[in-house]
Amino acid sequence: MSISVPEQASASEPTQTQAQARHTEPTAAGMAMANELAEQTRDQVDRVEAPPRRARPWQRYLEANLGLREYWYPAALSDALPEGGTHAVTMLGEEILLVRKNGKLYAVEDRCAHRGTRFSERPLVLSEDTITCWYHTWTFDMENGDLRCILNEPESALVGRTGVRAYPIVEAKGLLFVYIGDEEPPPLEADVPGSFLAADTVMHYAQPDIIRANWRLALENSFDPGHHFIHNWSPYVIESGFPMTFGYVAKKGEEAGETTYVVDAPGPKGFSRCTATAELIFSAVIPGKDGRPDTTYTAPAAVGKSREELISSFLAMPPIEVGIWLPSCNETVNFPSDMITFDWLVPIDENHTRSFMFGAKPCATEEEAEAWRGETGHTEWYVPTVEKFLIDDNKARESMQTFYEKENGWDRERLYRPDLEITMFRKFFSEHARDIQTPDKLIKPRSRRNPTRGRS
Amino acid sequence: MSISVPEQASASEPTQTQAQARHTEPTAAGMAMANELAEQTRDQVDRVEAPPRRARPWQRYLEANLGLREYWYPAALSDALPEGGTHAVTMLGEEILLVRKNGKLYAVEDRCAHRGTRFSERPLVLSEDTITCWYHTWTFDMENGDLRCILNEPESALVGRTGVRAYPIVEAKGLLFVYIGDEEPPPLEADVPGSFLAADTVMHYAQPDIIRANWRLALENSFDPGHHFIHNWSPYVIESGFPMTFGYVAKKGEEAGETTYVVDAPGPKGFSRCTATAELIFSAVIPGKDGRPDTTYTAPAAVGKSREELISSFLAMPPIEVGIWLPSCNETVNFPSDMITFDWLVPIDENHTRSFMFGAKPCATEEEAEAWRGETGHTEWYVPTVEKFLIDDNKARESMQTFYEKENGWDRERLYRPDLEITMFRKFFSEHARDIQTPDKLIKPRSRRNPTRGRS
Amino acid sequence: MSISVPEQASASEPTQTQAQARHTEPTAAGMAMANELAEQTRDQVDRVEAPPRRARPWQRYLEANLGLREYWYPAALSDALPEGGTHAVTMLGEEILLVRKNGKLYAVEDRCAHRGTRFSERPLVLSEDTITCWYHTWTFDMENGDLRCILNEPESALVGRTGVRAYPIVEAKGLLFVYIGDEEPPPLEADVPGSFLAADTVMHYAQPDIIRANWRLALENSFDPGHHFIHNWSPYVIESGFPMTFGYVAKKGEEAGETTYVVDAPGPKGFSRCTATAELIFSAVIPGKDGRPDTTYTAPAAVGKSREELISSFLAMPPIEVGIWLPSCNETVNFPSDMITFDWLVPIDENHTRSFMFGAKPCATEEEAEAWRGETGHTEWYVPTVEKFLIDDNKARESMQTFYEKENGWDRERLYRPDLEITMFRKFFSEHARDIQTPDKLIKPRSRRNPTRGRS
Ligand code: FES
Ligand code: FES
Ligand code: FES
Ligand SMILES: [Fe+2]
Ligand SMILES: [Fe+2]
Ligand SMILES: [Fe+2]
Repeated sequence: MSISVPEQASASEPTQTQAQARHTEPTAAGMAMANELAEQTRDQVDRVEAPPRRARPWQRYLEANLGLREYWYPAALSDALPEGGTHAVTMLGEEILLVRKNGKLYAVEDRCAHRGTRFSERPLVLSEDTITCWYHTWTFDMENGDLRCILNEPESALVGRTGVRAYPIVEAKGLLFVYIGDEEPPPLEADVPGSFLAADTVMHYAQPDIIRANWRLALENSFDPGHHFIHNWSPYVIESGFPMTFGYVAKKGEEAGETTYVVDAPGPKGFSRCTATAELIFSAVIPGKDGRPDTTYTAPAAVGKSREELISSFLAMPPIEVGIWLPSCNETVNFPSDMITFDWLVPIDENHTRSFMFGAKPCATEEEAEAWRGETGHTEWYVPTVEKFLIDDNKARESMQTFYEKENGWDRERLYRPDLEITMFRKFFSEHARDIQTPDKLIKPRSRRNPTRGRS
Repeated sequence: MSISVPEQASASEPTQTQAQARHTEPTAAGMAMANELAEQTRDQVDRVEAPPRRARPWQRYLEANLGLREYWYPAALSDALPEGGTHAVTMLGEEILLVRKNGKLYAVEDRCAHRGTRFSERPLVLSEDTITCWYHTWTFDMENGDLRCILNEPESALVGRTGVRAYPIVEAKGLLFVYIGDEEPPPLEADVPGSFLAADTVMHYAQPDIIRANWRLALENSFDPGHHFIHNWSPYVIESGFPMTFGYVAKKGEEAGETTYVVDAPGPKGFSRCTATAELIFSAVIPGKDGRPDTTYTAPAAVGKSREELISSFLAMPPIEVGIWLPSCNETVNFPSDMITFDWLVPIDENHTRSFMFGAKPCATEEEAEAWRGETGHTEWYVPTVEKFLIDDNKARESMQTFYEKENGWDRERLYRPDLEITMFRKFFSEHARDIQTPDKLIKPRSRRNPTRGRS
Repeated sequence: MSISVPEQASASEPTQTQAQARHTEPTAAGMAMANELAEQTRDQVDRVEAPPRRARPWQRYLEANLGLREYWYPAALSDALPEGGTHAVTMLGEEILLVRKNGKLYAVEDRCAHRGTRFSERPLVLSEDTITCWYHTWTFDMENGDLRCILNEPESALVGRTGVRAYPIVEAKGLLFVYIGDEEPPPLEADVPGSFLAADTVMHYAQPDIIRANWRLALENSFDPGHHFIHNWSPYVIESGFPMTFGYVAKKGEEAGETTYVVDAPGPKGFSRCTATAELIFSAVIPGKDGRPDTTYTAPAAVGKSREELISSFLAMPPIEVGIWLPSCNETVNFPSDMITFDWLVPIDENHTRSFMFGAKPCATEEEAEAWRGETGHTEWYVPTVEKFLIDDNKARESMQTFYEKENGWDRERLYRPDLEITMFRKFFSEHARDIQTPDKLIKPRSRRNPTRGRS
């Protein structure tokens, strides 16, 4: 089976536009599943709220400390790998060397099969499709990882009988994607939101950021209906005077209705939530104790504004839709205005996550596209979204790491109703993940069944 | 039972003065215990001196890696917590947020019951007696730790059914004390030397220091009769020309006589040693080997002075008395002159200790008190005691950490007679400690039996 | 038994010159052993090349994580220990204090027998042959480690009944050697190449370097026939235009013939390899795949030169001979010109190695010797060998550390024919090592059987 790369796809068949891709309509089966899942997890949250703890229905998710396996993930920006260059990355605990040579892309295990030296310390691409280890001259085929030859031992019987892992790699929309898994990879479209690949979408990229938190804490934050409170302190909110709610929490019993599951599209499995029916809370009462008076707390930017005023300014905006896609992509539509923000949260190791952030916009002309890649995208997307908003999400993501890493947080967490949507997501991942990355997979030799698998 | 805070005490009943508090006379029972303990531990040291090792009679002390539990400890200087402010500390492995709001003090677990976020990263005290987690708006009663409300989920069934730990906290003499334990706390007086609380005592505070050593190594140093040798290199000794002995070691068989046990006072359990009867050694002979001559070594500052001269200058001074009080307070009377030095050694974690040092002086007038808090205390106490003397104790305390942390020191240490007093102290702590802090207590949820315990 | 130090040797008996020492002729027994070992290990490599893995015949070597025990090792340059001074080192995991006092040398455990304080934090040598612990005055005989006296407890029954370890120490050729072991040490000559001790040899010393790699990875690199490829990027090679081969790999079946085993000399056990019969490869073909053309890669400095030209310039030079001697000395003869380079690789701990490098040259006059120690040695040896060549070996040594430390490298390595010589060396070490350093030996008290062993 061959991997259909996006470039081929866009050449050979009509491609959906971003606008088409974005508004995924729920299928009947999807709705049924949504309701069933919500029902089950609502029960679960009820039980969870009452100790003692029982087994979680998202056990598989709990084991996915290093991420999901058998998926395409962003590895680097295209710009990080110019022609003739190399770029070393760690993803899901695997050290990988990316190479671009004569216009072709390669991704190989960055660890020599001989004695473990990292190729990246002195990368030697001495022929068009091989990498030579700088220590003892073992030379590997970058397409399939096979040992092609050994410069100082030409007759070695090992040639063709050992090798390093090679990873499928494709480029799309200015990003390099690497497939982490042992099976034949599906087409890239299977793991990437349609709105990302849509022909008219133009990207404005931020430099990838490293978050000191497990990938699940990062990803959960992006979908977390109760977390919006933090953005009341985000520079964007303070400067714009446009208050955040205390959380886009669905009305009780309406959680499933907000959610659109996608399991049968050509694109990735996942779901999105439209916050149109959420409670809009800008003010809350803290009850006084022992007869002392209550305290009403109002979001700083909402002070002096009436509830009607606030709600009508919210309703005047196009509804924000938040999607979450396997293996770990967050997609936010219509924030801060008519664009899509992607935040791809790729596990580096158990305690670090690389965040790839892009602002996506459909552009009708190349002139418009050029402006979006440059100044317009910087001003309209990068500054308000990354610099003045996501920065607070990263702080929040990191703030839970100690609890989950060292204090048994996955067992000790105490969930409440808004977490229902997070648990739906955990269950969904547990059910639909192709496979899970585990520490033993990091050190076992490359798969024997598929020794010549490569990009060709 | 209510906690009687010192302010209340000094208002409602006659308080002993510092002078009264200091000279605790041994009771008959105390003397009997001292003799018995000394006898037992002398046997033990004899046995210890001859390998192989046997079980130690201070086993419980060996387990108290994180400190003693069910005690009041200094947490911070009052100055570190101004009105409306917060201050985060780690004590005995517990992360705690101190808050002063509308003149009242609070101490709460610095870890949200929801998903573990630290309140201190953005402390939100939105009403007079609550702390709101900045991540998802869970709001806790700072007096008893109960979940008071959730701003973005007002109807949550969890309200009142979960919470964080709240810690008793009181202020006395410019220090904030927090109670670490699950039981009803005793009055502060039970855990604080009387001389500290005495009405006429005025404190000069040093900034707390962090020692990279377990609290027991720090505390043992402060009582260690054999450690005085180190101070021959202390700037205070070198500059004053007043030599230190090689150790205030009691004469053989007189160890118990020097020691005054206190177990039945209203104040803390502990004991003090008056060094009046110690051997005064300023010079010692190192025997030569194989017929080579002996070498006599004399303390640098004692060179050229006769033994009579040295002893009479020592006897001219008021005798120095060293006290050690549960849970971990060291009190030194009459050094360098007529004042008391407190060195409170509070465990941070297994390998770090916070040292609170104050110079205490009875002052008759507010003018005198003001001077002591300022320039006089700085010159007469801070400089000679902290800057030019205790600095060497901290070096010594840290110098044993590797051995005890990584090299099995608690089993391998090889004690000698002067350590008898340290072992008396270890046995005393083993017998009288209310409880011991253990790692499992750091992560278990707050006590269920006492859910509403607070400062009120 | 007394240790004959080199100074005594050179005074009392005729010493072989460096020229004599260097050209060790193989004995018949040595040749037989070489052939047998080569045969066994060739079988082993064949088996190793085909998974699955079996037990290795160098098991003992695999356990020697901390080095070999019962050997003399360089501890420091003589210059690091002036008269009256002290110098603290860690070797094979043991912390040792070196002292030079009244012209005599001492090496004692840097950890007080009382409570583990490091003497080196304030070394007090108060008599000609004792070290006093700065904490509680325990005073130890530096020759045999015995507790000589306690300054503040003169009558202690512990005197003479406990102590610290003392280590044999000798000085030779500007280096301080310490013996790590429990048995009577052999003469220094047993553990040091004859060419090092030869009367006419003069040393030019580099400052010791710390390599972040296990000592075996460092030592294997120095003997590794396949590693020469790395030096094509060494500044010395680039600047001189004199290309390196891709590896001094012996012709198939001739590995044993190149190797001279030494097991019955007065000097250390070990072996040397003369590279005269190695294949000289400056160029190699990388086969093309799928009908694409082959690529020929030529060493940068060999480009434009004919093979005959290159080989004749190599043969014009005296043949380079590489020796490896127990416990961990690498000796390279005739590189870059007529001198010997020693690289003594002393384990610090499991993950760090101290490298002592010297350039040795026989000098006929004191004038010549003086020049070699100074400017001539700097220009002719230090710059080309250390600064511009060994620096790449250290990079290579460190490049395998992660694989062997964290990724199970000792089991996962996949050897090829040139590694035969490394496995011969591993087997040789496994068979001939006197003993192995293990973690339990680091913390057990000094040997009881030999309590007064010292330098006398
Ligand atoms: S480690 Fe790569 S060729 Fe040896
Ligand atoms: S972690 Fe505190 S409210 Fe969620
Ligand atoms: S630790 Fe050395 S004498 Fe006490
Ligand atoms: Fe957010
Ligand atoms: Fe002291
Ligand atoms: Fe080399």
